[in-house]
Amino acid sequence: MYAVIMAGGRGTRFWPRSREKKPKHLLDITGKKTIIQETVDRIKPIINPDNILIVTGKKHSGILIKQLPEIPLQNIIIEPEGKNTAACIGLAALHIQKRISDEIMVVLPSDHAITDSHEFNAVIEAAAKAAEQKEGLITIGIKPSSVNTGFGYIEQAEPFLKINGKDVFRVKSIREKPDFQQAQAFVQNGNFFWNSGMFIWRISTILKQINCHIPDLYAGLMKINEALGSPDENAIVPRVYKKLKSISIDYGVMEKANNVFMLKGDFGWSDVGSWDTLWEISPKDGQGNVLTEGSNVIFEDTEGSFVYSPKKLVATVGIKDLIIVETKDALLICKKGSSQDVKKIVEALEEKKLKKYL
Amino acid sequence: MYAVIMAGGRGTRFWPRSREKKPKHLLDITGKKTIIQETVDRIKPIINPDNILIVTGKKHSGILIKQLPEIPLQNIIIEPEGKNTAACIGLAALHIQKRISDEIMVVLPSDHAITDSHEFNAVIEAAAKAAEQKEGLITIGIKPSSVNTGFGYIEQAEPFLKINGKDVFRVKSIREKPDFQQAQAFVQNGNFFWNSGMFIWRISTILKQINCHIPDLYAGLMKINEALGSPDENAIVPRVYKKLKSISIDYGVMEKANNVFMLKGDFGWSDVGSWDTLWEISPKDGQGNVLTEGSNVIFEDTEGSFVYSPKKLVATVGIKDLIIVETKDALLICKKGSSQDVKKIVEALEEKKLKKYL
Repeated sequence: MYAVIMAGGRGTRFWPRSREKKPKHLLDITGKKTIIQETVDRIKPIINPDNILIVTGKKHSGILIKQLPEIPLQNIIIEPEGKNTAACIGLAALHIQKRISDEIMVVLPSDHAITDSHEFNAVIEAAAKAAEQKEGLITIGIKPSSVNTGFGYIEQAEPFLKINGKDVFRVKSIREKPDFQQAQAFVQNGNFFWNSGMFIWRISTILKQINCHIPDLYAGLMKINEALGSPDENAIVPRVYKKLKSISIDYGVMEKANNVFMLKGDFGWSDVGSWDTLWEISPKDGQGNVLTEGSNVIFEDTEGSFVYSPKKLVATVGIKDLIIVETKDALLICKKGSSQDVKKIVEALEEKKLKKYL
Repeated sequence: MYAVIMAGGRGTRFWPRSREKKPKHLLDITGKKTIIQETVDRIKPIINPDNILIVTGKKHSGILIKQLPEIPLQNIIIEPEGKNTAACIGLAALHIQKRISDEIMVVLPSDHAITDSHEFNAVIEAAAKAAEQKEGLITIGIKPSSVNTGFGYIEQAEPFLKINGKDVFRVKSIREKPDFQQAQAFVQNGNFFWNSGMFIWRISTILKQINCHIPDLYAGLMKINEALGSPDENAIVPRVYKKLKSISIDYGVMEKANNVFMLKGDFGWSDVGSWDTLWEISPKDGQGNVLTEGSNVIFEDTEGSFVYSPKKLVATVGIKDLIIVETKDALLICKKGSSQDVKKIVEALEEKKLKKYL
């Protein structure tokens, strides 16, 4: 079994901590280790680091290699350009196929948090067994805890298999990023689960599905496949990859495929999508304040707030529901509930060409 | 005519900018110059710097001398210990008396802001003329713009003199720091004015009044008077001064004296008593935000806030009515309306013995 960790995201919503040079998954936002280190540590009990591939951009590969010394260098797959998840998954599939022909592939985002690693691995192992038994695309669905339009939704159908005590459900439909009304209906319905972006399948299955639903992308991948390992690899792969269709695996394949299955992931999952989410999943004091480790704070009449300030003393007076993030060169003060708009700050910085803050 | 500027305050409510080593009056909080520089500049058109005395503590005298090069060194009067305004005014009165016997003395706080300097000087000149004509204690009353329990109130009686077109009123009573209900009644009444802490009187008049109402303080001042200019000055003055009664001139003299007069000060006065007050008196953008000069800010959906950040980029998202003050080693985030409680932060720092932040 191979794991493919997709580490191509930028995570602008974690500005001012996340920067172009150090995106979210390379930061210790959820604990003492970085998110990608936690992602690798989590899967290690069931997948050997020799079988863990990381797909990332060139500019982050240096830090990534330093953060993950147990991952063999040849397992760091450089994406010549960000081309969304379908191309990324296709590229990783080819690399694994080259090494070992067909195999089970576990696709994991690099920047999520999971509290119950043991249960997580039990679900992944059950999913892997299901993928061995049945040619299908297996997803992990998360029971929605809110109406969220940022996620895709998986519509569960009847159970189909039971493996290690875990139900494998057929999937009726996958609906990417609904509007608010749709999302509300999904959550009320009870049969819809958040698409966690984790997938388990055979290499042969996903390549076949890409061929079927995104044939032009598949054609490009086949050119890359020919070049892999050849003397022209470094010339051909980037040239072809940059022309690949940029589409997510969800829109490109999952929404259209008819052999999609789902296991429920009840292991304390969070996409850690924003400072708000980070506040939600972090331990709080009696007033609902989150104080990140090492931060030096004096709270006076302060509730429901989040403070990250590893260097500077922060004093708060009479405040409620604020996110305060103090870094070496920039300070963010954001009302809780507005942290999706932190990306607007990044956009403003881009517009003003204030590159040193990006 | 002599001016005495009282520069003994600490201004803890302007933490983290005000520190033990650099209190409020030594900071450029209201403009490009420091508040005490603005105070000296304001009075200079009518009182020569040779006649401006500054009373301050030893530890601030160095910075003060640097900030006020036009003030002769012998005009910097070192208070051996903070002993409130009655002792401070008494000490300054003795110094002036030593130089020139009786004279008009204008007492000014070092840390207030005034927008109309011309009118201010016109009022001071009229008050000085009144003090020449009549043995009395002359105050400057400010028309209340809010119910404020932090000020003393002057109850105006009938006009008594008219000088340069300005009425000099008799004063019926002086009420220091009322409770909220009293303050509300005062403001509604219309005859009560804020005590601005500025006084104009003859040296002989105030010393006589101190003798009458605070005789033990007067006795101490007389011992100091004997020592001034003698070889024992440096030994005796500190020893005696430290034992002086610590009382404000308002409680000690003004509330009790029956020869108090008042001129109205309609010159855009503010005591700049807190970050809230500073927001109130500062120019604002269309969203009511105050951005101090040189601060580097990106506002996203931000209203009614105050930002001081000369070094670091500050980005705000979805916030309202916040005071944000970023200094080299400390950051304050305070809800507008709560800035009186900034002194609680200073108390907490004292309790925790975090001296480097004091």
